[in-house]
Formats: sequence, C-alpha cells, structure tokens
Amino acid sequence: MIKINENYLKLQDSYLFSTIAKKVADFQAKNPDKKIIKLGIGDVTLPIAPKIIEAIHKATDEMAKKETFKGYGPEQGYDFLREKIVEWDYKKRGISIEKEEIFISDGAKCDTGNIQELFSTDNIIAITDPVYPVYLDSNVMAGRTGSFDKNTGKFEKVVYMPATAENNFEPELPKEKVDMLYLCFPNNPTGTVLNKEQLTKWVKYAKENGSIIFFDSAYEAYISEENVPHSIYEIEGAKEVAIEFRSFSKTAGFTGVRCAYAVVPKELKVGEVSLNALWNRRQCTKFNGVPYITQKAAEAVYTEEGQKQIKENIAYYMENARIIREGLEKSGYTVYGGKNAPYIWLKVPEGMTSWEFFDKLLEEKNIVGTPGSGFGPSGEGYFRLTAFGSRENTIEAMNRIKQ
Amino acid sequence: MIKINENYLKLQDSYLFSTIAKKVADFQAKNPDKKIIKLGIGDVTLPIAPKIIEAIHKATDEMAKKETFKGYGPEQGYDFLREKIVEWDYKKRGISIEKEEIFISDGAKCDTGNIQELFSTDNIIAITDPVYPVYLDSNVMAGRTGSFDKNTGKFEKVVYMPATAENNFEPELPKEKVDMLYLCFPNNPTGTVLNKEQLTKWVKYAKENGSIIFFDSAYEAYISEENVPHSIYEIEGAKEVAIEFRSFSKTAGFTGVRCAYAVVPKELKVGEVSLNALWNRRQCTKFNGVPYITQKAAEAVYTEEGQKQIKENIAYYMENARIIREGLEKSGYTVYGGKNAPYIWLKVPEGMTSWEFFDKLLEEKNIVGTPGSGFGPSGEGYFRLTAFGSRENTIEAMNRIKQ
Repeated sequence: MIKINENYLKLQDSYLFSTIAKKVADFQAKNPDKKIIKLGIGDVTLPIAPKIIEAIHKATDEMAKKETFKGYGPEQGYDFLREKIVEWDYKKRGISIEKEEIFISDGAKCDTGNIQELFSTDNIIAITDPVYPVYLDSNVMAGRTGSFDKNTGKFEKVVYMPATAENNFEPELPKEKVDMLYLCFPNNPTGTVLNKEQLTKWVKYAKENGSIIFFDSAYEAYISEENVPHSIYEIEGAKEVAIEFRSFSKTAGFTGVRCAYAVVPKELKVGEVSLNALWNRRQCTKFNGVPYITQKAAEAVYTEEGQKQIKENIAYYMENARIIREGLEKSGYTVYGGKNAPYIWLKVPEGMTSWEFFDKLLEEKNIVGTPGSGFGPSGEGYFRLTAFGSRENTIEAMNRIKQ
Repeated sequence: MIKINENYLKLQDSYLFSTIAKKVADFQAKNPDKKIIKLGIGDVTLPIAPKIIEAIHKATDEMAKKETFKGYGPEQGYDFLREKIVEWDYKKRGISIEKEEIFISDGAKCDTGNIQELFSTDNIIAITDPVYPVYLDSNVMAGRTGSFDKNTGKFEKVVYMPATAENNFEPELPKEKVDMLYLCFPNNPTGTVLNKEQLTKWVKYAKENGSIIFFDSAYEAYISEENVPHSIYEIEGAKEVAIEFRSFSKTAGFTGVRCAYAVVPKELKVGEVSLNALWNRRQCTKFNGVPYITQKAAEAVYTEEGQKQIKENIAYYMENARIIREGLEKSGYTVYGGKNAPYIWLKVPEGMTSWEFFDKLLEEKNIVGTPGSGFGPSGEGYFRLTAFGSRENTIEAMNRIKQ
C-alpha cells in the first residue's frame, strides 16, 4: 500500500493568498456594488513595455519558420540571455559572474522552493520572521522543519529570526549554528533593506558556521538609496557562501510572463561537491528550460530602450509607494518600507490582530491588503500594502483611509 | 556545517542526452566537413502551426495594453485551457474529467519528475526497463532507490520490469508488491504500445496492491491503430489508481514553447488524503503557473484549424517513421515501434553494445541516435531513432545506412 509524504500534512492552512482571494470573493459576492481596491498580492498592473512586446512578436515569427524554429533549448537557459545578465546585472556593478553560474528559470518562487532539494533533510534552516511563505513551506514538505506548534505558531526545528520595529527590521544573527539561511532584501513583506555593513555580518556568519545563504533579491530594481547592496555578491567572499535569486517579475512586470534566474557560483562548494554542478543536474533532470520566446522577452530588458521603459514603470510604482507611505502617516499610522521596495509595512491599530484589521479594511474601506501574521508570528500586528495598484486606485485608497 | 543531499551522488553519469551532445560536438569539431544527421534526441523540427502563432501574437498584444494585461495567473492554469482539455482530450473520447482535475504545467518532464514528492520515500517504485531516465533519476535524488549496483546496472531498491523483444515489449507485472508504477505508452524509447486488455491488467494490479500508476501519455497523438488506449482513463476504475501526464511538446511541436498538463482525479486517494489536494498544494507552493501567452497558444490547438494543422505535422513525422522502419528492415535490421509513436527501436548488430553502435553510426554514417542502454540495462543491444528529423535528412540517413 502506497504511503504519502506525511510532511505535507504538517503544512498550515492553505496558501496565504488563496485564503485572501476567497475572503475577497465572498465579500464581493455579498456586496456586488462595492468597488474593491486590491493592494494585497504583489502583482504588477502596468502592461509589458513596448520594447519587450516587440521582441516577443519577433521571436514568435522565428518560431513560425522552419529555418528559425527553436525546439528544446538548454535547460540552463540560452547563452544570449545569460551573457546579458552577466554584463548588465553584475559586470556594470563591478561583480564578476560567469555565464555558467546563471540558471534561467520560470520563477524565483520555483527556484527558492526547489533549491532545498540539493541539501540534506537533517540541516537546520533559519528564516526571517515575517517571511515569504515559500521558503518555509518548501522545507515543511521536505521534512526539515518538524511539527507545527500551535501555541508558538512555529515549527519546532526551524530557527525564526524576528524582524520587527524593535530591532529596526534588522534580524539578529542566530545564536545557534544553522545550515541554511533564507534572506530576502529588499524584504518581502516588510519593504525594509540591509545596508552593506549589515549584510556583511551575514556573510561572515555563514563563513564561520559553514552555512549557505539563499539570497532573494527579487526586488533589487526598487532600491533608491545608496549603500544598499543590489546583489549579495557586492559583499566580499559571498560567492563562497551564497546563492542569489533574481526575477523579471517585479523588475519588468513579468508576473504573467514567467522568467527569473538563480546564480550558483562555482566557488560554492560543500566539501568537494560543487553546488553549481548539483543544481545543474537538478535542472537538467526535472526542468526543460524557459520558452525561447520568453527568454527573448527577457533579453529585451537589457537594451537602452528596454531599461528606460522598465524604469519608468518602476518609478510609477514607487510614486504609488510614496503616496501610500505619506497618506498612511497623515492618517496617523506608523509605516515602514516603501523607499527601496514596492511594499509598505504598517503597524495595525493597538488591540487588533492583523486578520481583524484585514477584515475591517475590507468591510469598511473595501481595500484588500495582506495581514502580517500570514507571513509568520512576528508579522502579527503588521499589515502589508503594495504599490502595484494603479495611481487612481492608490490615491482613492488613501482617501478612503483618511475618512 | 551544511550537508548536501547525498542521494544526488548516487546518480549515474550525467544526463544521457548531455553525454550524446558532447560526443557529437567532439566529433563535429574533429570533422568540420561532415554533415551530421541528428535522429537522437526526441525534438521536433517543424515550426509552430499558423493558428497557434496567430494566438501567440494576439495574446502578446493583450499583454501590451493595461486593460487586457495579465499578471499572475492561477497556478493550476487558466480555466479557458482546462475546459478545452476536458472537452477535446477527454469528453470526445467518452471520458469524464473535471477541469479541477487538470493542472497545466511547463512540461511533462517537470510533472513526472515532481510527482514523487507527494509520496513517502519508503515506497517501492517500479519502472519499465528501458525507461525515460527522469522517472528513475528523480527517485534517486529523493532517496527512494538505494545505491547503484555496477554489476547489474540497477539500483538496489527499484523494481525493474524488462520490456524486450522476448516479451514483445509487454512488461511483466511485478511479482512483489510495489507502490509507485511508472508507465509510458506509447512508449519512449521503444515506440511500442499496450492495447486495452493489456493496460487493464495494470489497473487491476494497482487496485489489488494499493499502488498508484503514473501514466505518461505524452505520445498519444501518434497512435494510429485501433484498440490502443489514448488515456489510461479509458480503462474502468483507472481514476482511482492513476495520474496521467500529457504534453503539447510532441502533439503540437511545443518543445520550445513549454506546455503540458497532469490529470489528478478527485477519486484518487491514499486513505483519507486526496492526491488532487496534495498536488494542488505542491503546485501553489513551488510553481507560479504557465505564461498566459503560452496557455493561449495551447488553447489554439483545440480549434478545427489548429487540429488540422497539428495533425498534418504528426502525419509528416509518421511518414518519416515509416521510411525509417522500412529502410532499416531493407538493410537487414530488426525494428520495433514507429507505428503508434515517433520512435523506432532497433536491434543492434550481434556482438556490439549500444554505445559501440552509437559510435560506429556517428563515425561511419554521421548519424546520431540514442543508445538503448542509456535507458536502462534491458535497453542494451537496442538503439533508438526518432522520426522528428526533416524528410530529406530521414531519407538521406536511410541511404547512408543502406550503403
């Protein structure tokens, strides 16, 4: 008799955003006349930039002709795209990465979810709290977390590193030895960042403890301030201890186009074993590469025109972020983030839980956000709004809150 | 100190097709004047059909406008595509499948590689031998296979079910109880099929033993003979014991477009646990859905015009299959398959191994095929050619072999 992977049964509830979607659908069904403004899920709303659209049409026409048709591509991605990434995302910042260290994928969600497969289920993982749920859930499924404790809201074997207003959203280094560290900066959900000095401590910790950092920099394009690293490889020695994840989703509005990449440096080894080789093997066995058309779309991001167009979109979202930040402050809220990230993290009013605030905001103001507690126990008492709405909706939302 | 997943170290060599690619590249570098004909990897060569190209352009234009732009889609796939699959692939064959049982993905390789995650690592797996390497390798990585035995060419805990000329490529049911059964019909690599009566035995075995069948029917569009099931759900009771995998790769030339789907029936349970719910959770946690544009491309397959166009392409490849089959027979080879599948499986000449024949064919005839032993120990002594080449190359290859 077949047995299931019992670890799946330890997963808590359904995935955060599905729960929200259901609540919103129920509310809308009961209140068909209400105009709901959605600032919950981190999904972009501006269309794909013209330069990228042009590239998609061109690649599509190549697929229509025998002479230029492309079948299976390399599982690691086409060199034309890997080379552009090396040049534009790394070399321009003074970082030396080889194209063989870049693995094109269909999403940072997939990559950050799959990366744990390369490692023993005995390893101890550490996550910041609050956290993007995928890091935790993929480890629950793999059996690395132990059971969920309802009293603490935590999994027994996981090291939680709180990031709250109390420590200015700079999580403390673990006191114990941990093996696998998940960091996301600019941070989802708090919208906060680490500066170079702060990030350097994590690289040092990883070196001293033989740990590996999974560095999710999906939001690096939103950084506006100086001294905030766009890549962990800006920190000396990071190539020996860190895998970096990047995505076109928020950089170029690719949430529905699906393209991302992971950087697995050749220097990164566990004993004699090259993690670049292991990840390569994983991808070759369980992945068939990203569509040619999609990779051509991503390539167009790395042109002067493409850059100009995506930066206009990012500026649009960051103006929304400013409107939300300042709007909330004027309405008496304490807010964080929104300067180097498209997320605004606010303190919910005293005496309310995050979900209570979610319900109140939905019912009274018809605004959807994301309850902080959905991201972990230290997210309780906070709430996330995103800057990805339209300008009109963003302004309208702030007007509703002001009233 | 972090530890790796030691199971990865049990994997044998590098992935079959990478090894072939390297040998071919080396040969070409040494013999730049030779025109190599590639009938090795199962990759299509005809361009994407006009009706599908039209759909891609149209969807691309939707992504260019704010009003019609699509961000994150449902992880399970858009309803417009799931509904078409239900209607065209199942209802038209008298099979009742609900759209919630269909999960759109970026490849059957990913799906067949990932499905094992839902199950305990204690389960016993059974694979046909020879076999598509992904079924085995994904289980090696997960730790379900034990160690590799160099003497037998087998993993110690895996049940191998030989499919050779001796049993007319109908693998025997396992004598022991196994939990997870991988079947692929029409078969890759042998090109052979099971008829309804034969497949019924497997469903019966699974019911009696509490096993689950992973049924890969990626090549069903190539079936030309009667009484060969296109779907395992043509067999009564199969919904309680089988997950089916389908792909647009070979059906519509999507190897570079990337779209496939898995069917996980609601009836399929292990104890009280719904596998449909588990797979849904897996996909929602580690996958972000298939690009909107790609799903629109797949939708165009399900139109009268789309069907006509893809069937012309399939007929083209199957004419190639006939040319190879008959050409080889005329040259004195014993051949199998090629009637309901784009693969021809031939006996290599007495006294040679599959890899020796590979080298000989590459060096003397400048033709690339796939050595049977790359698919498992019972593939030794066989060799796979594919019908996916151009007509000219296919004819030219047969002429070279004749000489």
